[in-house]
Amino acid sequence: MHLRFSLNVNKHSTCTTGSSSLSFRSHTCGELRPADVGEEVILCGWVQYLRQDLFVIMRDFSGLAQILIPQDEVRLQVAVTFTISVTEMPTGEIEVLAESVEILNVCRKLPFEIKDFVKKSESLRMQYRYLDLRSSQMQYNLRLRSQLVMKMREYLCNVHGFVDVETPTLFKRTPGGAKEFVVPSREPGRFYSLPQSPQQFKQLLMVAGIDRYFQLARCYRDEGSKPDRQPEFTQVDIEMSFVDQAGIRGLIEGLVQYSWPVEKDPVSTPFPCITYEKAMKDYGVDKPDTRFAMKLMDISKTFHNTEIEFLKDALNQPGGCIQAICIPDGAKHLKGKDHESLKQTARTQFGQVCNLTRPLLGKLRLQCAELLEGSGVAVRDPSAFHFLWVVDFPLFLPKEEDPDQLESAHHPFTAPLPEDAHLLYSLPHKVRGQHYDLVLNGCEIGGGSIRIHKASDQQHVLETILKEDPSLLSHLLEALDSGAPPHGGIALGLDRFLSIIVGAPSIRDVIAFPKSFRGHDLMSRAPDFVSEDELKSYHISVNWPAGDEGNQEK
Amino acid sequence: MHLRFSLNVNKHSTCTTGSSSLSFRSHTCGELRPADVGEEVILCGWVQYLRQDLFVIMRDFSGLAQILIPQDEVRLQVAVTFTISVTEMPTGEIEVLAESVEILNVCRKLPFEIKDFVKKSESLRMQYRYLDLRSSQMQYNLRLRSQLVMKMREYLCNVHGFVDVETPTLFKRTPGGAKEFVVPSREPGRFYSLPQSPQQFKQLLMVAGIDRYFQLARCYRDEGSKPDRQPEFTQVDIEMSFVDQAGIRGLIEGLVQYSWPVEKDPVSTPFPCITYEKAMKDYGVDKPDTRFAMKLMDISKTFHNTEIEFLKDALNQPGGCIQAICIPDGAKHLKGKDHESLKQTARTQFGQVCNLTRPLLGKLRLQCAELLEGSGVAVRDPSAFHFLWVVDFPLFLPKEEDPDQLESAHHPFTAPLPEDAHLLYSLPHKVRGQHYDLVLNGCEIGGGSIRIHKASDQQHVLETILKEDPSLLSHLLEALDSGAPPHGGIALGLDRFLSIIVGAPSIRDVIAFPKSFRGHDLMSRAPDFVSEDELKSYHISVNWPAGDEGNQEK
Repeated sequence: MHLRFSLNVNKHSTCTTGSSSLSFRSHTCGELRPADVGEEVILCGWVQYLRQDLFVIMRDFSGLAQILIPQDEVRLQVAVTFTISVTEMPTGEIEVLAESVEILNVCRKLPFEIKDFVKKSESLRMQYRYLDLRSSQMQYNLRLRSQLVMKMREYLCNVHGFVDVETPTLFKRTPGGAKEFVVPSREPGRFYSLPQSPQQFKQLLMVAGIDRYFQLARCYRDEGSKPDRQPEFTQVDIEMSFVDQAGIRGLIEGLVQYSWPVEKDPVSTPFPCITYEKAMKDYGVDKPDTRFAMKLMDISKTFHNTEIEFLKDALNQPGGCIQAICIPDGAKHLKGKDHESLKQTARTQFGQVCNLTRPLLGKLRLQCAELLEGSGVAVRDPSAFHFLWVVDFPLFLPKEEDPDQLESAHHPFTAPLPEDAHLLYSLPHKVRGQHYDLVLNGCEIGGGSIRIHKASDQQHVLETILKEDPSLLSHLLEALDSGAPPHGGIALGLDRFLSIIVGAPSIRDVIAFPKSFRGHDLMSRAPDFVSEDELKSYHISVNWPAGDEGNQEK
Repeated sequence: MHLRFSLNVNKHSTCTTGSSSLSFRSHTCGELRPADVGEEVILCGWVQYLRQDLFVIMRDFSGLAQILIPQDEVRLQVAVTFTISVTEMPTGEIEVLAESVEILNVCRKLPFEIKDFVKKSESLRMQYRYLDLRSSQMQYNLRLRSQLVMKMREYLCNVHGFVDVETPTLFKRTPGGAKEFVVPSREPGRFYSLPQSPQQFKQLLMVAGIDRYFQLARCYRDEGSKPDRQPEFTQVDIEMSFVDQAGIRGLIEGLVQYSWPVEKDPVSTPFPCITYEKAMKDYGVDKPDTRFAMKLMDISKTFHNTEIEFLKDALNQPGGCIQAICIPDGAKHLKGKDHESLKQTARTQFGQVCNLTRPLLGKLRLQCAELLEGSGVAVRDPSAFHFLWVVDFPLFLPKEEDPDQLESAHHPFTAPLPEDAHLLYSLPHKVRGQHYDLVLNGCEIGGGSIRIHKASDQQHVLETILKEDPSLLSHLLEALDSGAPPHGGIALGLDRFLSIIVGAPSIRDVIAFPKSFRGHDLMSRAPDFVSEDELKSYHISVNWPAGDEGNQEK
């Protein structure tokens, strides 16, 4: 009963739109319905498994179809085309009968089965990523990413008149930009660099009168080996002229709402907004997870007459205070070993950071939530999405290595709050910036600011406050001095945002071909050795560490 | 009469959609209409010029507005906000009266005026690109690019169910990929490379069951200095499973039609399609400009009894023939110096290429068209868009340096025509490939193919025909051997396509921040020198040409 039918150029689907248009198939597996009974349809896909010597379960991206067929020539994961007819069964369900089969390709024994419940190691998944992506979870993740990005574009372009502008990725190295990859050019000693963000270009586009810019921008950051970081990542990059903080925040709230997956509970706006100061006071961190309370509490007053020696000492120090976290039913749920682990954290962290009490308590608060969840208490609803704006950050922070010097809390282009602007020339360390972070479930998923748009202010910040050489940014200063409009923007980390939406443990699960935490592509084995000869035109040679030269021969 | 009004956080536009939503302004300059008479509106923009000591002509991206105002404090190209009221004039036109002005920024003397008729040198335009982009032509080009790309996305995602997937740009170097930029990693001797296209990834996505993939893909090509090439460029990258040539061609015809600018004459489909053989025979080139005829003609028969010595010699050679181009009224329009220039081309080109007659005549045909146009004859309609498919290319060509060896005419992944497939194992040089080029007005704007989807065929092509080491593509061969579906795709060169649509002389005119022909960013001065210290973590050092070391200090 194994019939071949020959493919010919007139066999196109009659659909003019949708997932089967212009294709050999007439339907996808997942869309067959009782209404199709009596039709002859063509399916294309893979043999997922065989059942009872009678049925082939066929898979394509849309789902499964069970097809009645003798299976002597059909093997697992073969790519096949079936011409089938759809009949109604007495139960009211549909049954599909194969009329002809064409085997389009064969398949070797795969390193793992394409079944969601089959556990695979991370490195095996990465090495055979083209098989891993066949899983229904990865298909869902990549397709959701595409749909969400499309909705974002519709919102920005079609609803709000933004212009999608591509900016270069071969750019000039930022002085001291230790995390920027370099790209040698054919001119001796001259290098491009892969930028960490299109920050300068987006501001220049505002000077250029583009008015509203966005880009799904590929960005690069060389951080060596770091867990759950990628050397290249994508940000939704946005900049607008003649706008203030409230305008940008409103835009982003609308963007999230518009692009939010329909199958999830809708997002309500406006998002709550708290100041940096309050975030640190209540949660001990500038990106609080607001899905649960357990806020930090100042209980100094309770102890102002205490006889307990170490508390008394603490209160007598300048600015000394006593802080607590109230854990509901903590005594019931937290066991001896939980106390031990909390104490351990306190011991390890204490003394590592100056002015530590609150950041430490912020960490302990999260650790308590994890410990409670570990013992079965529902603390954070995994299906809840808590968005939060954090605003009024300090514009400058003391440098860790030299606290008399100031450095930008975010970047040197952030404008001061209008009410703090006069302090820029007298008490810069007191100035709060027009920076805003977007936080989702305790993760920072975006950040931006209203920018300095006057050349004189920018020059003052670079030269007088930050002690940097302004000539390195002369093109930006000249641009601001060419009638730059007031402007501001934001960048959202698309990979992180998506991984939270789909509940993925890692951003690798929302990226088609991610690198390992060491920055390797395990499938193609990049980065790889390049011969000295191939490097000649770039006027560079490799400095082999002593005794390592043999490596280059692999 | 110069009033300042203070900006406050509640001054947002009441528009919830469109180009003035979430902004300080209520309207753009270009949208003011008689219907707005009586309204108080807020405009934000630049002072374009002053007229008669009474009027300020204000510009934003949408157009100009003439505003009645004393102008003592207003200078050219200053960014300003006007609160104005719109009144009707006796002529029926509208007049706008300034009620208050806020000067948002000042402006230095600019290196050139922002007027379309002011001629600027190319290098000045590039150095001050943020001013050059203020011109109405560049605003049009960048906004059209954004709109066209948005329509393409709607067509692919929303109409045909394509999935937008981002693929990595830090990849493994292709063996012998002389045009690939390298990116040093922190592991000694190991380099990433910036790929020339996502070719491998798009095929792997088909193996992964993504079914329909597209991406506006950033691609990289290091060709040193070449006129009108860019080291980074953008292609509309498409791949589809279970499809044949006709399916891809139909998709692209629909894509062009759907995204075509509304202000241009509509494009009719299907596009004409000719074979490579016919293109070479009729036009002497594989990307013919079909806006004009003047086809190559074989006039050997006319001369088969000729007594003219050099023609006789030519005809007596194996495969010898006599070809001609008939230039309508050529004798009337082409002067002595035109003949000289045609002869000069013939002399220079003849002997440079083997089997030359037709390519040479193809060049002379284009040169004749230019010469005729130079003397005022309308040969090619500058507003006409002639799309053309060229198909049935040879799959392999003899290597220039060793004609007994074959190399791929396009790339080694192209499938043979079904009717030539049997020749792959016997007479590979006779095989035609399932490759298709899309040509517009004589420029190749896209190319693609149906791919080899069986590992055994791919291995045969790589190993036996091309004599390449198949282990370098082992991941792709393994992927094909995992039940790869039949698939094919195409890539359109977005920059070139747009430059033809807007009639720009260079692709630099449709790119926001292009590089110069030497690959330099004249604004930021990239590529630039990097200190030896900064290169240390990448284990590379610069090989300075003798006597050139001083350069690194600039």
